Amino acid sequence: MLGRFLMSEPKSAGEGFLMSHDDHEATLKALQVELVSSQLWTLESGRKILVVFEGRDAAGKDGVIRRITEHLSVRATRVTALPKPSDRERSQWFFQRYAAHLPAAGEWVIFNRSWYNRAGVERVMEFSTPVEQTQFLDEAPVFERMLVEAGVTLLKYWLDISKPEQARRLERRRSDPLKRLKVSPLDAVAQEKWEAYSAARDDMLKRTHTAIAPWWCVRADHKGEARLNVIRHLLHAVAAPELSPTVARPDPKILFPFELEALTDGRLAR
Amino acid sequence: MLGRFLMSEPKSAGEGFLMSHDDHEATLKALQVELVSSQLWTLESGRKILVVFEGRDAAGKDGVIRRITEHLSVRATRVTALPKPSDRERSQWFFQRYAAHLPAAGEWVIFNRSWYNRAGVERVMEFSTPVEQTQFLDEAPVFERMLVEAGVTLLKYWLDISKPEQARRLERRRSDPLKRLKVSPLDAVAQEKWEAYSAARDDMLKRTHTAIAPWWCVRADHKGEARLNVIRHLLHAVAAPELSPTVARPDPKILFPFELEALTDGRLAR
Amino acid sequence: MLGRFLMSEPKSAGEGFLMSHDDHEATLKALQVELVSSQLWTLESGRKILVVFEGRDAAGKDGVIRRITEHLSVRATRVTALPKPSDRERSQWFFQRYAAHLPAAGEWVIFNRSWYNRAGVERVMEFSTPVEQTQFLDEAPVFERMLVEAGVTLLKYWLDISKPEQARRLERRRSDPLKRLKVSPLDAVAQEKWEAYSAARDDMLKRTHTAIAPWWCVRADHKGEARLNVIRHLLHAVAAPELSPTVARPDPKILFPFELEALTDGRLAR
Amino acid sequence: MLGRFLMSEPKSAGEGFLMSHDDHEATLKALQVELVSSQLWTLESGRKILVVFEGRDAAGKDGVIRRITEHLSVRATRVTALPKPSDRERSQWFFQRYAAHLPAAGEWVIFNRSWYNRAGVERVMEFSTPVEQTQFLDEAPVFERMLVEAGVTLLKYWLDISKPEQARRLERRRSDPLKRLKVSPLDAVAQEKWEAYSAARDDMLKRTHTAIAPWWCVRADHKGEARLNVIRHLLHAVAAPELSPTVARPDPKILFPFELEALTDGRLAR
Repeated sequence: MLGRFLMSEPKSAGEGFLMSHDDHEATLKALQVELVSSQLWTLESGRKILVVFEGRDAAGKDGVIRRITEHLSVRATRVTALPKPSDRERSQWFFQRYAAHLPAAGEWVIFNRSWYNRAGVERVMEFSTPVEQTQFLDEAPVFERMLVEAGVTLLKYWLDISKPEQARRLERRRSDPLKRLKVSPLDAVAQEKWEAYSAARDDMLKRTHTAIAPWWCVRADHKGEARLNVIRHLLHAVAAPELSPTVARPDPKILFPFELEALTDGRLAR
Repeated sequence: MLGRFLMSEPKSAGEGFLMSHDDHEATLKALQVELVSSQLWTLESGRKILVVFEGRDAAGKDGVIRRITEHLSVRATRVTALPKPSDRERSQWFFQRYAAHLPAAGEWVIFNRSWYNRAGVERVMEFSTPVEQTQFLDEAPVFERMLVEAGVTLLKYWLDISKPEQARRLERRRSDPLKRLKVSPLDAVAQEKWEAYSAARDDMLKRTHTAIAPWWCVRADHKGEARLNVIRHLLHAVAAPELSPTVARPDPKILFPFELEALTDGRLAR
Repeated sequence: MLGRFLMSEPKSAGEGFLMSHDDHEATLKALQVELVSSQLWTLESGRKILVVFEGRDAAGKDGVIRRITEHLSVRATRVTALPKPSDRERSQWFFQRYAAHLPAAGEWVIFNRSWYNRAGVERVMEFSTPVEQTQFLDEAPVFERMLVEAGVTLLKYWLDISKPEQARRLERRRSDPLKRLKVSPLDAVAQEKWEAYSAARDDMLKRTHTAIAPWWCVRADHKGEARLNVIRHLLHAVAAPELSPTVARPDPKILFPFELEALTDGRLAR
Repeated sequence: MLGRFLMSEPKSAGEGFLMSHDDHEATLKALQVELVSSQLWTLESGRKILVVFEGRDAAGKDGVIRRITEHLSVRATRVTALPKPSDRERSQWFFQRYAAHLPAAGEWVIFNRSWYNRAGVERVMEFSTPVEQTQFLDEAPVFERMLVEAGVTLLKYWLDISKPEQARRLERRRSDPLKRLKVSPLDAVAQEKWEAYSAARDDMLKRTHTAIAPWWCVRADHKGEARLNVIRHLLHAVAAPELSPTVARPDPKILFPFELEALTDGRLAR
């Protein structure tokens, strides 16, 4: 019964979101049921799940995280969005304050923005030095490889939106009283420095996409499809042996591993 | 426009939930807008908000927390649901591991279950000694007074449900694939040891309800009304100066400060 | 054999240090043997030991701590000297960052300066507000009572030195290349603001000396005697059942519980 | 004046400790003066110092650490000797609980035993699996390179003693009432499993000695000389620009970088 929704493929995700609202909700619910099963399995097997969400402002990180965690165990799931570091923290090993939040057996930890701040906003806004940023790009893959070798299932998602879509969302945000907490002085910069952010993203993806900890790029102009595809991917990656065979693979036009061509063939927004 | 929903009073909350689904959603949304304003104000003013949710199994803690946090800042809001303590933690000062999570300026911290575990499940299931439990009841008010005097806005909500309603929810939980992570061996105990839990609740409320950190009891058999009333109460308690005058006070038949009479007059379930 | 040293009483501690260097070393060593036995006992029994050392600059806190810990277990003993709080920590519950260091079962934690900074240097140097300082004096006894009721053996020592002795030590410090790390801009203030520090000390002792967590005052003009007496007191307080009967009680002319008279009868320096 | 002691070279460290007690104390004191200068410099320059001491039981780790820290700033220096991990910690990334203790700007952190437990006692006593131990040997160099690239000055000392010297020390320990806290059931194993510990040491040194984080081997049968040489080495490595030119280089017969030949030519005990 639920299988119908799980298998339902987006028809033309590139052009528009054609699934009806009701179908979308039903599909989401079916996938959330699978997320619940997956977490039951990770709790039993002691697997450690670490998910990193990155993306431009307004790319939809909060929204997809809310859908993922909605029915997960509050005790086995942590969403981490670290505040600005103190001066003392700033002088420490860069990964130190993130390391404090890594998952123990059976836990899912989701970073809503992460160490990759250093390669994005910190670069564009010059919050750290070029040397620190370069060093970071060298070290992130090393740090991540250690985690993966320690048995952490690490999933990195880059939510990509187009410039006009971001403009629309930031505009809507300004007039939506429910989104006032998301409005920040950096919003204006997001559009003004669009190219600088593109360049930062390109370098980040090129330098930190590795076989062991690949970047999964998500075309997020259509929020609903982006969410369903991220969840589908997550489910297959966590690879619960009991994952329902009806869970569709993510649509490769919406969610795909990073590759250099994507920077020029239009799949990643310029 | 939104004001209509904010003011809308439950008609007969004791008997049933008469607000239509659409009205409910509109009211909730209007209240969430006010939550957003409140957090903007606490961020500016540096206030520290600490909310404790307690209640029997299936009383609706997760659900109300999800509605409260839905549009709040991910960086200024933390939901804390601590795992079982390690042996070393168990030997430390009881409040030590909770103290590590208290809010800094501008932060909202919401405890999904809290130190009050000691007075509830630990007592009924004999996970700690009677001496530890008695000592806890003495110390919780002292600990909480320190927090309040340190400028923390502390709000403690007891979500109360009736025995048949709990039975229904636990039953539904067992058959709902989205709620499998909530099913636990303790569920059976919840009904079997209903009276023991009532006695534990009564002692807890009597001993830890103080002028400075009162318990707010919530009749939670109707989830929707319970949520709206908790949020209304929270908004008035955080007391942002710009709180819209249209935000209704909570319905005192649904949300009321603890008093001894409530243990016998039927307002708290036996 | 060692008993001779353990019992050896200071002859005229008020006037001068008459024990020979060799006798002193032998006595110290005998007391350290007893400290070792005490810690073996606390490790077995799971007792938690918390020792707070306060006192004016150059009163000898580092020295006595070094003698106490010299032969204790490095894994069961922690000396805590917290750095300046970050802005975020400063906005939290005052005791939060101290609470993170409290002892677990079997551990000895020694604070080299502690939360009492707020009543001393912070008051004299105006590093916090008078309201914060007053509030602290109200809350420290409450916090400490909670720890004691949680089974912590809490010992608070105030090392007291006279103005001329402090002047001599600060002077010697300036010319001793081994003590350059102890020299600080606050040293000059220590003598200049001697009376302000006295007043701060008086208020602190008066307001935070409680039956359950008393202040033990130590006349520390003679370092050696001060150390021996603190260790003797500590040994009796930890009260290991196997404490050798030959361990002398501390000399009440050197180490005594705070009482108001001590502020005027010359036992505490003005 | 002090220079005389700083330069004084051990005459025949291999055979015996020929420096008189007074000369030794004077030399130690002169070196401690230089340690103080070095820390003043690291405080000013914000350098981060991380020192790891490893070695067989009774090799003298506690003693050398005590001499190093004796006159350092209590606020800028931390000695870390972690207790056994909890089950939850055991399931986390292996380096996570160590990462929490890394130095911030200006701090010296000294590990009294460290992550290398996994390659030593855990291997010999089978406290972890061979797979975990092998993985550790791969990852320790990676972890350490990250720290060094983050600006940490990392110094790793292996204190090496001979089998008869260890036997003597463990024997003396058993009869010295000051050392009762050092006696452990593992002491017996140290001699019984001498070869297993040698093999573990050999693999550890071979696999984790890197250009960026080399192992400094110290012949520690003569405690005094070992201490002086470690401090000399530490001083040159911290490389305070103002380091007195009179500070002798460590004696290469006593302290030398690891090399394969040392495993067979008798410099490292078999």
